[in-house]
Amino acid sequence: MTRDRALAPVAGFRFAGIASGIKKKAGALDLGAIVADSPVPTAAVFTKNRVKAAPVVLAAGRLRSLTARAVLVNSGNANAATGAAGMTAAEKTTALLAEAIGCEPDDVIPCSTGVIGHVLPVEPFSRSMADLAGALRPDGGGDFATAILTTDKGPKVAEASFEFGDITYRVLAMGKGAGMIHPDMATTLAFVVTDAPVEGNALRAVLQSATDATFNRITVDGDTSTNDAIIAMASGLAGGKPLTGPGERALLGAFTEVLDTIAQAIVADGEGAEHVARIRTEGLRDSKSALEIARTVATSLLVKTAMHGKDPNWGRLLAAAGRAGVAFEIEKAQVWLGDVCIFRDGESLLSDETEAAASRVMAQPRYEIRLVLGSGEGQAHYDTCDLGHSYVTLNADYRT
Amino acid sequence: MTRDRALAPVAGFRFAGIASGIKKKAGALDLGAIVADSPVPTAAVFTKNRVKAAPVVLAAGRLRSLTARAVLVNSGNANAATGAAGMTAAEKTTALLAEAIGCEPDDVIPCSTGVIGHVLPVEPFSRSMADLAGALRPDGGGDFATAILTTDKGPKVAEASFEFGDITYRVLAMGKGAGMIHPDMATTLAFVVTDAPVEGNALRAVLQSATDATFNRITVDGDTSTNDAIIAMASGLAGGKPLTGPGERALLGAFTEVLDTIAQAIVADGEGAEHVARIRTEGLRDSKSALEIARTVATSLLVKTAMHGKDPNWGRLLAAAGRAGVAFEIEKAQVWLGDVCIFRDGESLLSDETEAAASRVMAQPRYEIRLVLGSGEGQAHYDTCDLGHSYVTLNADYRT
Repeated sequence: MTRDRALAPVAGFRFAGIASGIKKKAGALDLGAIVADSPVPTAAVFTKNRVKAAPVVLAAGRLRSLTARAVLVNSGNANAATGAAGMTAAEKTTALLAEAIGCEPDDVIPCSTGVIGHVLPVEPFSRSMADLAGALRPDGGGDFATAILTTDKGPKVAEASFEFGDITYRVLAMGKGAGMIHPDMATTLAFVVTDAPVEGNALRAVLQSATDATFNRITVDGDTSTNDAIIAMASGLAGGKPLTGPGERALLGAFTEVLDTIAQAIVADGEGAEHVARIRTEGLRDSKSALEIARTVATSLLVKTAMHGKDPNWGRLLAAAGRAGVAFEIEKAQVWLGDVCIFRDGESLLSDETEAAASRVMAQPRYEIRLVLGSGEGQAHYDTCDLGHSYVTLNADYRT
Repeated sequence: MTRDRALAPVAGFRFAGIASGIKKKAGALDLGAIVADSPVPTAAVFTKNRVKAAPVVLAAGRLRSLTARAVLVNSGNANAATGAAGMTAAEKTTALLAEAIGCEPDDVIPCSTGVIGHVLPVEPFSRSMADLAGALRPDGGGDFATAILTTDKGPKVAEASFEFGDITYRVLAMGKGAGMIHPDMATTLAFVVTDAPVEGNALRAVLQSATDATFNRITVDGDTSTNDAIIAMASGLAGGKPLTGPGERALLGAFTEVLDTIAQAIVADGEGAEHVARIRTEGLRDSKSALEIARTVATSLLVKTAMHGKDPNWGRLLAAAGRAGVAFEIEKAQVWLGDVCIFRDGESLLSDETEAAASRVMAQPRYEIRLVLGSGEGQAHYDTCDLGHSYVTLNADYRT
């Protein structure tokens, strides 16, 4: 079982994923850990939701130091909206791992995902902590990536490497997030480890930039979880001086690559989504304007249902663009579906032929919707998925 | 036919609605007019969508004068995204009504609703204008209210009266908007006429305030039409001095009453919507914060699908509140469905009993979701409807 999930090691880290009984299904992996050989530079970005789960509050406080030894992740229970009892549970469970691996509790970062409104039970952790610590191994990333899942179809992992100063550095990312289905559990979590040397502040800047370019440009249903977190750890064991300037940019490239892969997998996951479209906006005054329009189009229900119906509906695309609060000239607008132009110079180009061609593009699992809205330099993209009956069924009937 | 639709007159106005052939269905009313006895104070609020239909652009320009003699409304064609040809069509059609009733073209305000991307044909107007002018009558409001409909289930009218200075004033509103279904046609239009005396600037202020309190607090799917418009005309024929101060506030009360009725009817309309909920937020620092949270909750897909499933899901409600960007203390939060409290002091109150009671509340066509989020004075409300399979079916399959 472990062999199928084996991932190549990243120097300085061990991983584990085991079944602790938090999930009701017997034998389901639900408890994972990443443990560094020693405390290492660690940075995180967290949910912007004002209702933050206990583990998020605890993790954010502990990461003010920009250092950690381990992350402890459970699935099956989000420990959100659980008040003081939830915070106590988060503290106790991380203390258990700290004791098992020999570090300070403050050096263990907690993450939880699953149903909300139930205090995280400590008992499965106390019962299983020795097993978890015993399971830690350099190639255990696959088990970890499996243990953090809730309703995901499967593990989401991505690897990248880059060279700088004659050294090859590795980056490994593991994430979860099931997008449209069962959104009470649709927390987005991602973990990035690298053997590159980088100081805490630089690591934080790299993680934030990579997140802005990837996770902050996907939408499923516009809601934000109470538990979202992305955590990055850097062991530095591949050697070399702490990365700055060009080296830091190379690290950013690798982070962006792995987080983009994870983010794309999240949008595509879930039974509700059959199509993923990259909304690309061009010709705006600046990239901020372009992003605002791309985001508004990507989150439009009318656009998402038109995607589901494979309907090349330029009217909905332009109307959504129009309400983004950014000026553009519709007289010069172009709308493209893949390589098929369906609107140009203020006029529809839909004929039987172009409509059939556009529908063929929209039948693909992935395609691009391109809106050219002027002659400026500003461009941006935002990824979205279609909204179909499965979304309604799964979300309306989730509790019953 | 006319008798069933007769509405009590408002002094100074005549109304008509006829079949002109713009709609494909034979005999379907699709052309309407409201004509004042002479040019009167007239104000409007228009769509904030940057992509504005030709009639909206023409109407906004003409109403800088805050005076008009008539509105000319067609259904079946929105004359949106139609470039210069669309503008010419809007000018020609209003000139035809101006000629028929004897006024300047600038005194005729155009509104169009229907499919977008097709230039409005002038021929049905030229062929039918004499009929339209001939059909104008003081009790023709019902015909007008029918002629402006697209996919609405039926006409939406509301009447109110108020006394000021021993004079009884009348207010009549007629609107359309089918909410969730066929959103390419889901333009919101509303027309308010009164026999009260009020100057143009005051009328505009009253209309804007009444709109903010009603139409700007409903959501169906978050999209905004290219053609939305609300137009108010005041004949002053009931007598008295131009309303200011308390009189203006009384007029505002009547405008708010009739526009609230029309707005509620729009949310409830459409096959997709089975439930309308008023999201009420209380205890915030100020009403702006309360409105922002109410709006965010009302537009959450997870909340709207939970409504469809009659699922008393406080987690989704609080998570949506949490991402509104407004601080509140979840430890003090309360969540009510009708008179059933399901969350208080940071804890779920859901038991078999409260869950059954809450589900009964959610089975009603209209109910209230109340979020108490602190002890401040700020409160607000926002109306929303559930999102079910009909929405997906109608929007994904609309063109096919």
